Parts: sequence; C-alpha cells; structure tokens
Amino acid sequence: MAEENVKFATRPTGVGEMFQLLRDGQPRTRADLAATTGQARSTIAARVDLLLAAGLVTPTGEAVSTGGRPPATFAFNPGARVVLAVDLGATHVRLAVTDLAGTVLSEHHEPLAIADGPDVVLDRVATIGLTLISDAGRRLADLAGVGVGLPGPVEHSSGRPINPPIMPGWDDADVPGHLGQLLGVPVLVDNDVNIMALGEHATEYPQVDHLLFVKVATGIGAGIISDGQILRGAQGAAGDLGHIAAPGGSDVPCRCGNTGCLEAVASGQAVATRLRAQGFDVATSVDVVALVRGGNLVASQAVREAGREIGGVLAACVSMLNPSMIVIGGVLAEAGEHLLAGIREVVYRRSLPLATQHLRIVASQTKGRAGVLGASAMAADHFLSSEAIDNLIA
Amino acid sequence: MAEENVKFATRPTGVGEMFQLLRDGQPRTRADLAATTGQARSTIAARVDLLLAAGLVTPTGEAVSTGGRPPATFAFNPGARVVLAVDLGATHVRLAVTDLAGTVLSEHHEPLAIADGPDVVLDRVATIGLTLISDAGRRLADLAGVGVGLPGPVEHSSGRPINPPIMPGWDDADVPGHLGQLLGVPVLVDNDVNIMALGEHATEYPQVDHLLFVKVATGIGAGIISDGQILRGAQGAAGDLGHIAAPGGSDVPCRCGNTGCLEAVASGQAVATRLRAQGFDVATSVDVVALVRGGNLVASQAVREAGREIGGVLAACVSMLNPSMIVIGGVLAEAGEHLLAGIREVVYRRSLPLATQHLRIVASQTKGRAGVLGASAMAADHFLSSEAIDNLIA
Repeated sequence: MAEENVKFATRPTGVGEMFQLLRDGQPRTRADLAATTGQARSTIAARVDLLLAAGLVTPTGEAVSTGGRPPATFAFNPGARVVLAVDLGATHVRLAVTDLAGTVLSEHHEPLAIADGPDVVLDRVATIGLTLISDAGRRLADLAGVGVGLPGPVEHSSGRPINPPIMPGWDDADVPGHLGQLLGVPVLVDNDVNIMALGEHATEYPQVDHLLFVKVATGIGAGIISDGQILRGAQGAAGDLGHIAAPGGSDVPCRCGNTGCLEAVASGQAVATRLRAQGFDVATSVDVVALVRGGNLVASQAVREAGREIGGVLAACVSMLNPSMIVIGGVLAEAGEHLLAGIREVVYRRSLPLATQHLRIVASQTKGRAGVLGASAMAADHFLSSEAIDNLIA
Repeated sequence: MAEENVKFATRPTGVGEMFQLLRDGQPRTRADLAATTGQARSTIAARVDLLLAAGLVTPTGEAVSTGGRPPATFAFNPGARVVLAVDLGATHVRLAVTDLAGTVLSEHHEPLAIADGPDVVLDRVATIGLTLISDAGRRLADLAGVGVGLPGPVEHSSGRPINPPIMPGWDDADVPGHLGQLLGVPVLVDNDVNIMALGEHATEYPQVDHLLFVKVATGIGAGIISDGQILRGAQGAAGDLGHIAAPGGSDVPCRCGNTGCLEAVASGQAVATRLRAQGFDVATSVDVVALVRGGNLVASQAVREAGREIGGVLAACVSMLNPSMIVIGGVLAEAGEHLLAGIREVVYRRSLPLATQHLRIVASQTKGRAGVLGASAMAADHFLSSEAIDNLIA
C-alpha cells in the first residue's frame, strides 16, 4: 500500500515482522526485502541494522552485481542464541542444546523417574542443561529459552500439568516457575505427544499444514497440527486417541476405568500382554519390537492386528480432521512395516475418497528425537516471534 | 511501546486494525481508543474521521464529562451496509438480507431443487436477493457481500463444490464467479454444516472457542470451531461425521458404498426406514419428528437409540478435539430431548473426565436459521476484516 498512508502508522517497530521473512535462512539484500515488503529502503536499512547489531542476522557475502558495487547479502543467524530442549518420559529424560534452527549442538539421555516429583526432576534437568550448554561451547547468557515435554496433560498457557495420571506429585506444579528461576529464561511446556508432532512437523514436513502424529508405545496418543498450529482444545486435552473405543467392541479393561479403549487393545503394553498369554517372554514394547525384528511371525501378526485397531480409530480421525499426513511414531512403530500395514489397510477401507486421495501414512523420520526437536522448535518459535524480537530490540 | 520507534513504522494505515476494537458495538471516545491502543490521540482522531466518513462508525452521543466539554462517543454502525445470506439445501433455499451484525432485515424461504443445476439455482438466488434487498428498504449499492452455504463439500478458497454427491451438475461450478457477476460483490461459499456452526457460534456462543455443531437430518455432518475458527482440513472435508463407522459394528449398507456408517444407522432417514419396517407410515425425518411429538413410544425409543449411536462417534470426537460445547441441530434434533438424552448418555460414559468436566451438550438455539446466520457472519466478517477496511478506506 502507498507510502502516503504512513501518517496513520504508529506500529512501533515492525522489526520482528520483517525478521520473520528471514527465518527461512536464505541470504537476501536490502533491496530484496524492500521489494518483498513494499516498504521504503531507508526503513528496511534501519531495521536490518538493528538485527545485525543484535546478532540475529549476519552478513553472508555479496549478491551478483547488476553494475556498480555489489550489494551486501545477509541472513538469519541461527547460532545467535541456543535453546534447551527437554523430553521427559515416565522413566527417562532426553535433553539437547540446539541452535535457533533446531540443529543439535549437544545432547544427553539418562534414566530419570518422573515419579521422583518435580523438585528432584527439574533440579536434575537444570543441572544437565548447564552441562550441555557448556558442552556446546556456549554460556548461560546465550540461552534464549527452554522447551519441555511432559508425559501427561498440560495447561499450555500456564505450563502446569493437570491431573497427570502417571506423574505423582506433579499436579499443578509450576514447571516454568521452577526452571525459569534456575535458568533465568522463558520456559514453554506442553505434553510429549504435542511436542513430538511439532518436532516431526518442524523438521520433516514444515510445508504440511494438516498433520496427525500418533505415538504408539506403552500408551497411545496423538498430536494434531491443524493449519500449521498445534490443536489443543478447550482443556488442552485434544489428541487423546488412546481412550477412544476401539472399533472391535472389546471388553478388555483399560487403566482409565473404561473398557475396550484403543490403548487397552493396541498399545505396546497390550500386544506384550497378548504375546505373554501365548507363552512368549515379553514384558515391554521394546521386547515386542525385538521379537518382530527377529522374524517371529506370531509377534508380527499381533503388531499388524494392533495396527488394524489403530487404523479403525484413525479412520474416524481422518473423517473428522481431514489431515494430509499421518506420522506414526513411538517404540512400536520401530517394528517395521507391520504396524503401518495394519493401519493403512483399515484407514483406506474406512474413509471416503475425498479425505484419502492425498493422504500419506508414514513412519516417523525423527525416531527418538521427535520430542527434543519439538521442544526446541517450541522454545525457538517463542523467542523469535515478531513480538519477542520487537521487545528484544526495543 | 514507545512513540520514538515510530520512525520504523510503515504499516500503511491501521484503520482496519483499530476498527476491530469497535466491532463489539460498544460506544467509545477517542480517549478510550488511545488508552486501549497506546497510540497518539492525533493518530486515533484521524482514523476515526476516516471511519465516520465511510459510515462504518456513527456518533452515539456524549460520554460523562470529567469537566469541560463532554467528549463525543461513537460506535460501529452495523447498518452501514447489508449482506445477502443464502442457505441452499437439497430441495429448498432460505435467504436473508441482514445488516453487518447479523440482524435479519428481510427473509424468504421456498422450494428449490439443487438438482436443477447451478445456472438455474444461482439465477433464482440472485433474483430473490434483489427483492429482499428492496424489501429491506436498501439498494444494491448497499450490498457488501454474499455468503452461501451448499449441501456438499466445497473448496473454501475457490468457493467451488468438489464432487458433491447430491448436487448433480455442480462439480467445480464457479459459484462466486456466477453470483459475483450478477450482484457485483464478493461471494463467500462454504458447506452447509460449516455455516451452521458459524451461525450458532456467532449468534449464541461467540465466547466459546471450541465448539462442535452436529446436524442430524437426512444425513449427518459436523462443523468444527477450533480456536474460534472453522476447521476445514487439507481438502475442506473435515467434520465428515456421517461416514465414520458407528460403534455398534452394524453391516447396514451406506450410500457411500461402505457399511455401518453413522449416517446409515442413525440419520433421520435411517430412523424412518427402521420405523417403516415396524409398520409405521413415515418417509422422512420430519415424519419421525411428528411421530415423536405425538407421543409415540416406539419412535421416541428409535430416536434415543440413534442418539446413542451418534454419542458413540461424538465420544471419539470429544477425545480428539476436546470441545467445550456440542450443539445438536438438524431436523431430528427437533424431536425434543430424546436425541440429546441418547447422545449425552454415551458421550459421558465413553469420554475421560478431563475432556467432559466442562463439556456442555445442547440443542441448537438458532433452529432453521443457523445456516443463513452463518452465511451472513461469513460475508460480514470478510467485509469487515482489517485488510478489507484498509482497502475500502484507501
């Protein structure tokens, strides 16, 4: 729109907004930005100077000249700051320090019982975090934020767990307050499946706007990306796939108190229980995967049957949400094609052509790292938002 | 943020953005707006003058003075323009001319077969539209836009139907082009259930961010409001509740080619078929409703049983989407509490407490008008968006 309207403008900076154009990492000249935004060269130049001074943008060389002195190019500098990404499970934790583009600089994985409670667990997280920052050759002053995934429902706005079933002592715990106090930066918290969806989306499929990430492990849950954003619902409980009734109408009791829940018939735990009843020596999802990988036919069939049950519930999700991609992750997805084959079989049979003609159902590409990559993306996105950049520069 | 940063601002106007604050209809002074936005009084005054000149805002009197001349108040003027709202069904059409706040100024309802094809139907819509504008005492020049609901899948970005099963001749029809040519204004198109969700949301529950609207009539479908916006999915097919497998595992054939779809076991048509087999003289959903209202116990039980089947699928939706409100509309909802009782029974039994503790399941309050109210809201929202206002003023 026309420059003569500038008299009505009072938006304070617009630096953060312009910065969003640079987040793809492509080198650009001031003239490129002026052409893209339609804004005055002088305005663009002033904004770029602020971003260069803050280190968020670095010179990247010179563009091809069209005559005269070649114009300087510059690009987003993802190494300007680092974030700490934390993926807490029931019995272990995975942490990484990444740059602002999600490149892992240092990482660590260790057993840690969530049942030890928030004080013990979060203190340990902060201690490991400090070590990882140092391992990455950076200082605490470089830390821009912390992203945390928790194995239970979280009120995203406050970062507090809400009645988490497998996290004794954590109900309403002030996770952002505790870690923020120790590390001095903003702390973003979400449930583990949401951050896995975010990690897979940010790393592998940033161009896919409607994606469903399904974790099949001891339990079953889903993270929903809708219009490029995590869909949380009214209480942050959206994506709770595990307690939808499996189509088979089974009466297997579920830990939630109901019967026939998908989790009770098709989780890694459910498959292990079924195989144990058939005389196999399996305790966990990991044991099931080992059996399948060893070529055991009964185990492969049990996993494929679990896939069919999951497919029945996912067919309903496809009709409701119309995603263009379903990513299957979690330990049981590591059993190879058997789980996916069962899922695909039922989803393609039970959904309408309009919803499945462009639908892809794939295995997770980030493997065990989806959680930390998502926690990193969540913290980096917060730090690099237009508003945050405007505040940082102001 | 500070005024000294104004030098970096080049956002052309900001009139549209400020106007959004006024859309609630509350009278405000220039000082109120300056206080809310943190912007200079001179900037606010210039913007208000532009909105007054465009008629979008009108003087509403004087505020209570704190000494000296009392400051003038002004408010959004919903009568500045009108919109034409069109709700096309399989066999009839409902139209209304409303102001920009959805108040109906004139309306009309008549039989119209969608199977007559887009040329016949859309010409007729335009003709009735012109009459309704005149009935409302307005001129075509006052028309700000048209909103249309169609009984089939629509690609929202283009406004074209995609393989609509009950709309012969409409596949890929340029609905916005046809009506836009005749009436000279922007035309927004969506499927009927999405606009019903929008209408119920805008009129009755504007403060509810996560709402599911379920239409139970000849077919079954849902419109999903998530974070205050219609959730459409990758191909605009989201909310297709009718072809999810009903939990009972029935083998009743469905018109989609599958068996046991919710629509095949619990729609108005399905209930009518079942009652006919029991010797009742019923052909349509309307006949079923009449029978229930007449106190027939068998019909009431059949409707309640349909409610249970619908409840089974809605329980899955509650787990996936975590809405805080489910609104049940469509003809069969007019059978009183029987349908809702069946739905509530199963949803509350089959969903986790976290998802249902604040969930309300209610009957539609807008009755047959949800569609036109939603079409009106869709067209008015488009006309009153920040960008549209900026363009209008520029």
